[in-house]
Amino acid sequence: MPIEELRQAVLDANIATVRHGLVVSTFGNASGIDRASGRIVIKPSGVPYDQLSADNMALADLDGAVLDNRFKPSSDLATHAVLYRAFRDIGAVIHTHSTFATIFAQSCRALPPLGTTHADYFRGPVPVTRQLTEDEIARDYVTATGEVIVETFRDIDPLEVPAVLVAGHGPFVWGRDPEDAVTNALMLEEAARMAWHTLVLVPDIPPISPALLDRHFLRKHGVNATYGQ
Amino acid sequence: MPIEELRQAVLDANIATVRHGLVVSTFGNASGIDRASGRIVIKPSGVPYDQLSADNMALADLDGAVLDNRFKPSSDLATHAVLYRAFRDIGAVIHTHSTFATIFAQSCRALPPLGTTHADYFRGPVPVTRQLTEDEIARDYVTATGEVIVETFRDIDPLEVPAVLVAGHGPFVWGRDPEDAVTNALMLEEAARMAWHTLVLVPDIPPISPALLDRHFLRKHGVNATYGQ
Amino acid sequence: MPIEELRQAVLDANIATVRHGLVVSTFGNASGIDRASGRIVIKPSGVPYDQLSADNMALADLDGAVLDNRFKPSSDLATHAVLYRAFRDIGAVIHTHSTFATIFAQSCRALPPLGTTHADYFRGPVPVTRQLTEDEIARDYVTATGEVIVETFRDIDPLEVPAVLVAGHGPFVWGRDPEDAVTNALMLEEAARMAWHTLVLVPDIPPISPALLDRHFLRKHGVNATYGQ
Amino acid sequence: MPIEELRQAVLDANIATVRHGLVVSTFGNASGIDRASGRIVIKPSGVPYDQLSADNMALADLDGAVLDNRFKPSSDLATHAVLYRAFRDIGAVIHTHSTFATIFAQSCRALPPLGTTHADYFRGPVPVTRQLTEDEIARDYVTATGEVIVETFRDIDPLEVPAVLVAGHGPFVWGRDPEDAVTNALMLEEAARMAWHTLVLVPDIPPISPALLDRHFLRKHGVNATYGQ
Repeated sequence: MPIEELRQAVLDANIATVRHGLVVSTFGNASGIDRASGRIVIKPSGVPYDQLSADNMALADLDGAVLDNRFKPSSDLATHAVLYRAFRDIGAVIHTHSTFATIFAQSCRALPPLGTTHADYFRGPVPVTRQLTEDEIARDYVTATGEVIVETFRDIDPLEVPAVLVAGHGPFVWGRDPEDAVTNALMLEEAARMAWHTLVLVPDIPPISPALLDRHFLRKHGVNATYGQ
Repeated sequence: MPIEELRQAVLDANIATVRHGLVVSTFGNASGIDRASGRIVIKPSGVPYDQLSADNMALADLDGAVLDNRFKPSSDLATHAVLYRAFRDIGAVIHTHSTFATIFAQSCRALPPLGTTHADYFRGPVPVTRQLTEDEIARDYVTATGEVIVETFRDIDPLEVPAVLVAGHGPFVWGRDPEDAVTNALMLEEAARMAWHTLVLVPDIPPISPALLDRHFLRKHGVNATYGQ
Repeated sequence: MPIEELRQAVLDANIATVRHGLVVSTFGNASGIDRASGRIVIKPSGVPYDQLSADNMALADLDGAVLDNRFKPSSDLATHAVLYRAFRDIGAVIHTHSTFATIFAQSCRALPPLGTTHADYFRGPVPVTRQLTEDEIARDYVTATGEVIVETFRDIDPLEVPAVLVAGHGPFVWGRDPEDAVTNALMLEEAARMAWHTLVLVPDIPPISPALLDRHFLRKHGVNATYGQ
Repeated sequence: MPIEELRQAVLDANIATVRHGLVVSTFGNASGIDRASGRIVIKPSGVPYDQLSADNMALADLDGAVLDNRFKPSSDLATHAVLYRAFRDIGAVIHTHSTFATIFAQSCRALPPLGTTHADYFRGPVPVTRQLTEDEIARDYVTATGEVIVETFRDIDPLEVPAVLVAGHGPFVWGRDPEDAVTNALMLEEAARMAWHTLVLVPDIPPISPALLDRHFLRKHGVNATYGQ
């Protein structure tokens, strides 16, 4: 995605997360990457949401080094950069404190696939990270947050499960581009809302069958996807 | 209902489900049938909600065959068609992932009649289907979804209980016409919201008495209905 | 209150219950009484909310007999009339299916005074009625609903606890005039919402002390009320 | 803060608490103090929210004596005054009955730090007061409410934990100035909403580690705060 188009798409994603109620106060940031040049566009730090523009998005490289001195990037940039380096096919990352996804993160519980709403977007449980150690928090907390996410996805395809719950913190979500990541962030929150209520009503409810999970996920995401075409 | 009038009514029903918050993202579709001609009018696939019009509704016959090549029908058409063939007195079908009805579907629990809000619209529990088998999912999932609903209603009058919860998925609701189905979809969600909270507070609460259930249902739906006349 | 003023106040109360989200669909009605003439003004039956006007409010006497043939009164009139006959100091009655008050009604549990929000409006638990018998439901259900409320208040001052939960149904609320009854209906719902969440978190939480209950209730309602003057 | 500027800031804080849904009905009041003159500006009593202006804010001294006879101060003034006398570095106090903070107050449970959303604003649990005695309620209830808060903070820095839950009542929140106190009131409600849902899902969830708590709190509030600069 050309950098100018990407600036607009990242702006739109930052605005969308607020408009959809996924971000309370200033707890959120969205970024996108231009894979050709390796440049990351991310929400600037310290700019109120209503003053964000395509022009004041911050610019960094894949190592998290700032490329444009005019705007300081979000303080979570290092986490985004780790994810872009490890997950080579993703094009956007969003961090929110959206209510129900954060509740699962605070509960240190993975989000199980309890229905087809979940299965349409996530091919399996949305995992929760382990807790960070005292040492990781002290040394380079923001980078360590990215690394513990990557560690959690050792055996999971990040495009099949495009979200994670950071223990005691909140969700990080990604996608092929910023718009896709916004959809995943919205659906994660909706799936988490439904799962919370389902688990409170029936604590030992099992997940849906692998067959049903695949039927729904692949309808939208597989090579034979037929939905909405 | 003449086909032009039906197109408008089905459009209105699709819009109403979104406006009332019953449909998140694109998870919903409403249809209606002209019993005289056997033609089904249903939401088209791949058209954003804000571009829906009476004219771009899709058209199919009772076997689910497309009658108008301009607009592809919703991918759930086959489920709707099964319901129209089996339930001869219904005139409209709506599918949503409305939050609390879906929570009961994910919980694989029928919705019990715990109050008169429920009884005004549903003369008994709203049943939950059995899970589909792996084979049913693999062969013709959308048709099988309709068939398991019909199987669930073997001993239930679909006009006395105009809704079902598909296990692990969400609700299908119907009515004499699209407007009636929208009301039933709204009331199902409200009854489910109240039942969820009631069951969390008092897990072993019994349903209301058959006398109270009938008093309320028949006030609105029986041959001696007196309400709102 | 003169009848023309009362018509407007009852209209306002009916509109307010919808605007505040206490009434879903058509599940609600408000009335007021002119004690001098013994005439009851009540929401008409079968008139959509957006077509209600001071002029089309229905008129009845204390026995529930219709006084104006132009508009049929709400089908719950007989319940209102019983309350006006038994509770001589009330000037308005409101029936809603507001979510959390109805959840307590469906749970067949009184609403305990768990905080000062409750105590500011209700000097003790809001009681729940017993279930109606099959015979009561069959003979004159709407009148019996009023009678079981009165029975529940044998030892409670209806001006100190201006609300009741009808088992398996929903709340009836009253006040000195329609505006007062709307406030009580709103506060009942808010107290019920908080109580539900409190009881789910700590099921055996005891009510607040009688001293705190009285301190708050009498601040607003006693002869020495000082609040907001 | 000069008194005219303070009047506007206190007005804005009172309006903000309503706009953000923290205050239901008239259950709320915000105040600020000009430390140079020792004068308190507080919401007036008996003035509807939509008639509040910078000019009609009430004025009192640190002993709670009224300084301007035109407007009677909020009936909770004495509580505010106690807090200003005991907590010398705070510049504003807000009282609300916001839903989830009040639910914890009604549950007589401290709000534990279960996630970083909490840690960004509160460096530890938000404590709950003991119950007031019958004697305290009878003698000078409003002053006693302030005193029991101060007693609760014997070993807590009020700028590190700028909020308290008054048992059976609701939250009091404070900050360096009115705008800061509004942010703290909003974040208290959000943290309480998430904590309630987390505790219902996993009742024995432990708080986050002291290292994570400090990392987040000090990022925003310590001498080395880097966030949003």
